[in-house]
Amino acid sequence: MKFIGLLAAALTTFSFLPQAIKTIRDKDTKSISLGMYSMFASGVLLWLVYGLAIKDFPIIIANVITLIFAVAILFMKLKYK
Amino acid sequence: MKFIGLLAAALTTFSFLPQAIKTIRDKDTKSISLGMYSMFASGVLLWLVYGLAIKDFPIIIANVITLIFAVAILFMKLKYK
Repeated sequence: MKFIGLLAAALTTFSFLPQAIKTIRDKDTKSISLGMYSMFASGVLLWLVYGLAIKDFPIIIANVITLIFAVAILFMKLKYK
Repeated sequence: MKFIGLLAAALTTFSFLPQAIKTIRDKDTKSISLGMYSMFASGVLLWLVYGLAIKDFPIIIANVITLIFAVAILFMKLKYK
């Protein structure tokens, strides 16, 4: 079961990579929601704070990686209007 | 600290709602990545399987809600090409 959890974490974490690559390539963010990425990046930052507080390494590492992707997409949403 | 974790979970779960609403309204998914939502929905489904297996209610409920939003966005991505 631990393997299922790790695979789940890897999929949800790295799913933002194809979106980041597509957005860097297309420079188009019209159909991407600013509300979504504002809420999502804030939530991931809080997950990271939570992970650091309870010293849980899987929560920390998954959320550091996801935060990089989410902030990059949010930044491009703000840049390419 | 439990409050921070709950707030983090609420933000990351409900962040997909503004994206779903925007996509229903605009019927435009051009800048949304199919790869992202395919991976993300698969990952959330596995999180749900994992939550059910370890009988963890917060993991189950957060991933049921997220799965509804993610599948709705994925469905619209496939529908509105």
